[in-house]
Amino acid sequence: MKKIDVCLSPDLIHLYDLSSVAVVVVDIFRATSCMVTAFASGAAEIVPVEEVELCQQYGAKGYLTAAERNGVTPAGFDFDNSPFSYQVEKVKGAKICVTTTNGTVAIRRSSSAPAVYVGAFLNISRVADALKAWNGNALVVCAGWKGKPNLEDTLFAGALIDALTGEYEVADDAALMAWKQYNLASNDLLTAVKNSSHVNRLLGLGIEKDIAFCLEFDRYSVLPRLEGDALRLV
Amino acid sequence: MKKIDVCLSPDLIHLYDLSSVAVVVVDIFRATSCMVTAFASGAAEIVPVEEVELCQQYGAKGYLTAAERNGVTPAGFDFDNSPFSYQVEKVKGAKICVTTTNGTVAIRRSSSAPAVYVGAFLNISRVADALKAWNGNALVVCAGWKGKPNLEDTLFAGALIDALTGEYEVADDAALMAWKQYNLASNDLLTAVKNSSHVNRLLGLGIEKDIAFCLEFDRYSVLPRLEGDALRLV
Repeated sequence: MKKIDVCLSPDLIHLYDLSSVAVVVVDIFRATSCMVTAFASGAAEIVPVEEVELCQQYGAKGYLTAAERNGVTPAGFDFDNSPFSYQVEKVKGAKICVTTTNGTVAIRRSSSAPAVYVGAFLNISRVADALKAWNGNALVVCAGWKGKPNLEDTLFAGALIDALTGEYEVADDAALMAWKQYNLASNDLLTAVKNSSHVNRLLGLGIEKDIAFCLEFDRYSVLPRLEGDALRLV
Repeated sequence: MKKIDVCLSPDLIHLYDLSSVAVVVVDIFRATSCMVTAFASGAAEIVPVEEVELCQQYGAKGYLTAAERNGVTPAGFDFDNSPFSYQVEKVKGAKICVTTTNGTVAIRRSSSAPAVYVGAFLNISRVADALKAWNGNALVVCAGWKGKPNLEDTLFAGALIDALTGEYEVADDAALMAWKQYNLASNDLLTAVKNSSHVNRLLGLGIEKDIAFCLEFDRYSVLPRLEGDALRLV
């Protein structure tokens, strides 16, 4: 059977062989949830970059720009890191360059894999279907928070493993732990994440609405995939 | 309240400030379980080193030597990595130099902390008592397997957090997840670890007896602590 593993932090990605796996990058609060929302609103392409300066250079080339550092948006960017900001008309057909604290780092570090998908609860069934069709092993790369594992990305990994039961088996303990963590929380994800430090950090930013939105399953049926430097819809 | 955090892999230790925390290093299968057993059998000191060659140099200086790489023992060492090997007369009063795949690496990388204890289920109450007496925050450093998190070290971290309820609160999501993982498994740790990849790897080495032994709570009342290059009893 195909195997699925979970890299709990981008700082552990050197331990995984990316040469033949399909990677799913997840940053539930909020980078990949925003990206999925943007594509659902008609974005043409999203370029994830690690540096704020590079994002600004894309802006000078005509891209709309989005930035987040430590949960907040520096001045001078078109979008912040809330999924609600992407549910607007100007997203339609737009090319957007995005830099965030964790999510875009995780995407760039995964870029050597033959397939890199962007996952969120918002599009989890599309991600699961892509992995069912993929003829090989898979790796979920959790963005975490500044290198540390976090609960919500781990729960997504577990939910994805759960959705792939019978198609994939867990490769290692991190995947097993993510799956168990999800089974423990699956009947009420919002309550489960309420005590997480990351969520408390975000609630301090006044984004309760974002938290609930990012935990919705299958609101959208889009699947972003990395092609060269840009994410586009499959 | 004091805070306790969990570093799920030595490869993440750069993310944690060790300057004022008490560190508990754990490698349940089997380095720290062996060390606790050796001290309970009367060992005078244990020097953990990262390299096999350095271990051999200690051997030339009169130390007994123990080595493990990938679960097995290279030729020419006095001890392997089974706790049963340390329940013998020659351990009494001995100075032992140890190198293992994961555990000794985790100890050395933690050595800048003001207090570094060696923990295992075998001595968990002594570790908990030391942290209750410690006037500051604490960090459990899981040895994992070649940089990847593993179930049994995470379960120990969760069990320790559970034992410290009311004295320490969880600092971050890794600690929260370890605690939940332990609560899920606490009524039967042996069954819980049966499906872990690391345990399956070890069962292939024929050490079922070791696995059960290393999951025993409070068999011993010893607490090894790092002093300079060597572990000695508190």
